[in-house]
Amino acid sequence: MDKYLIGVDIGGTTSKIGLFTHDTFPDVEGRAIAETNTKDDGDGILPGIVKAIKGLLDEHGLSLDDIEGIGLGVPGPVIKGKKPGTTLVNQCVNLNWGVKNVAGEMAAMTGIDNIAVINDANAAALGEVICGTDKSLAEFRSAYRDTCAVFVTIGTGVGGGIVVDGDIMTGAFGAAGEIGHIKIAPQSKMMPKLVNAGLKPFGDLEYFTSATGIARVARAVLTAYNDHSSLREYVDVDAKNVFDAAKAGDGLAIRTTDFFFDTLGTGLAAVTAALDPDIFIIGGGVAGAGDFLLDGLHWAYQERVFHASRETEFRLAALGNDAGMIGAAAALA
Amino acid sequence: MDKYLIGVDIGGTTSKIGLFTHDTFPDVEGRAIAETNTKDDGDGILPGIVKAIKGLLDEHGLSLDDIEGIGLGVPGPVIKGKKPGTTLVNQCVNLNWGVKNVAGEMAAMTGIDNIAVINDANAAALGEVICGTDKSLAEFRSAYRDTCAVFVTIGTGVGGGIVVDGDIMTGAFGAAGEIGHIKIAPQSKMMPKLVNAGLKPFGDLEYFTSATGIARVARAVLTAYNDHSSLREYVDVDAKNVFDAAKAGDGLAIRTTDFFFDTLGTGLAAVTAALDPDIFIIGGGVAGAGDFLLDGLHWAYQERVFHASRETEFRLAALGNDAGMIGAAAALA
Repeated sequence: MDKYLIGVDIGGTTSKIGLFTHDTFPDVEGRAIAETNTKDDGDGILPGIVKAIKGLLDEHGLSLDDIEGIGLGVPGPVIKGKKPGTTLVNQCVNLNWGVKNVAGEMAAMTGIDNIAVINDANAAALGEVICGTDKSLAEFRSAYRDTCAVFVTIGTGVGGGIVVDGDIMTGAFGAAGEIGHIKIAPQSKMMPKLVNAGLKPFGDLEYFTSATGIARVARAVLTAYNDHSSLREYVDVDAKNVFDAAKAGDGLAIRTTDFFFDTLGTGLAAVTAALDPDIFIIGGGVAGAGDFLLDGLHWAYQERVFHASRETEFRLAALGNDAGMIGAAAALA
Repeated sequence: MDKYLIGVDIGGTTSKIGLFTHDTFPDVEGRAIAETNTKDDGDGILPGIVKAIKGLLDEHGLSLDDIEGIGLGVPGPVIKGKKPGTTLVNQCVNLNWGVKNVAGEMAAMTGIDNIAVINDANAAALGEVICGTDKSLAEFRSAYRDTCAVFVTIGTGVGGGIVVDGDIMTGAFGAAGEIGHIKIAPQSKMMPKLVNAGLKPFGDLEYFTSATGIARVARAVLTAYNDHSSLREYVDVDAKNVFDAAKAGDGLAIRTTDFFFDTLGTGLAAVTAALDPDIFIIGGGVAGAGDFLLDGLHWAYQERVFHASRETEFRLAALGNDAGMIGAAAALA
């Protein structure tokens, strides 16, 4: 009988658990949730996940013996050891974890040796890259030979994951794909007024282009200009308000989204100067703005990128909240 | 008998040819030069190289039968085909070449099937990465499993090459490692004065930090400030003048090198936000400034990089003008 795969996306509030088969991947055959308890250095988190996995298997008439491997996405840097079993998770602040041998602990609790541990943004990247193809998990690696995909997640922060030749690039210090930390000075003509209104002239890419960054820029724009704007109705304007208003033609909202496109486009062009990827996949909550966001960002990117790379492909992420769970399972392949 | 390898660094004026063995790599066992003739769409360049290779082999009592493979570094983008023999060189302006199947032509002229073609900056990167180890060519790939090295060459422009897991990363459009094209707005407090003196406030990383960029910034500094400076003695100040004067304590030269460190350090920190490499290797003519350059750049980088990656290693390139030839041969492994 075909064996099953488990993918887990460990989060600060809950962990999402998915059951998969090779044949039907990336379809989710079963789901479970485990509460995240950060007390006692988060020592109960992994046992809670194991308990939820066992419950999920019970539901499907399965046991741990039917499981080929467990993939875990963790919200923190993962330092890949050069030998099996030496990969360490290095301080997941949201889980109250210090340095932890997650793979070793899971193997001990489940008797399953095949445990993959990757950073959660990297897991989401792997999930989104795979989902964009019609390939089965088995065909995936060969399909992605010589391909570089960059997944960009725009939410509370700006994160990313880089998939090269079908493998996540982790980086020397577990920080590859942390493109939100690119330092940038936006070149908008509005900058003097926005700086006057409290915006920093120079900072991390995510300071300007995360969901919170977009709201921050919107507030500065609303302060700097006196024009009428539907955004003035909100006590606490957020990124979705900004994109909705821009789509409806609101002038100051459009100034804010143009600023976002130009600044993130410049940041992605810097990524391309290093990596020259085949494709950028745009996800995270802000990507809910859809084609309006994708088209504006793509255009701004093409204006700024080194000419050789103007044809980089852009697409929106497709898996939503399941990306991390699916990608964690994909990391087992 | 052990077979030999040939490495060729094809340049706009001459091509450098080196003879290597597996056992003694990267030592150069023999050398030849071929003149570059760009007439007739540069059609004579490859035949000229073949002739020089045959002469070199004659000198050593060898023939083409003793050659295991030929590696060629070319001054232009290389588009890697997915199938053997489909890799194309896409317009080497300095050679008058359009799109050319260099590997196919060399194989036809020499009867040798094992031909590697890579971009010259990538060849230099591969050469420098290998040379930094005590490994033989055969041990090289396994030694570089899970390692990412970025070679930065600072000369007329700023170029680079990225070696991941022992392989050159070429990129979707042959433009990976083109870090000189990162867009940047230097954050120096001198900027208003320098912009007044003619410097652009925003541009490609190489506009500010190549050899010509350093001279450009120096001229702006000399215009913007009235201080005494030994640099005023030069009719046409160059990057070497600037570094020599900075080492001797000249104030305006130090302002110029500090600007260089900060700007290039910010650019390399952006590369790290994407790739999180293990090491930066700094080469090109400007790297002749040695430890003074390396230490200043490393310090500025650490100030700007995402905290997780502060321990990235930095070292100076070691092979000088032989890097491309050695790396081209290494690409055969």
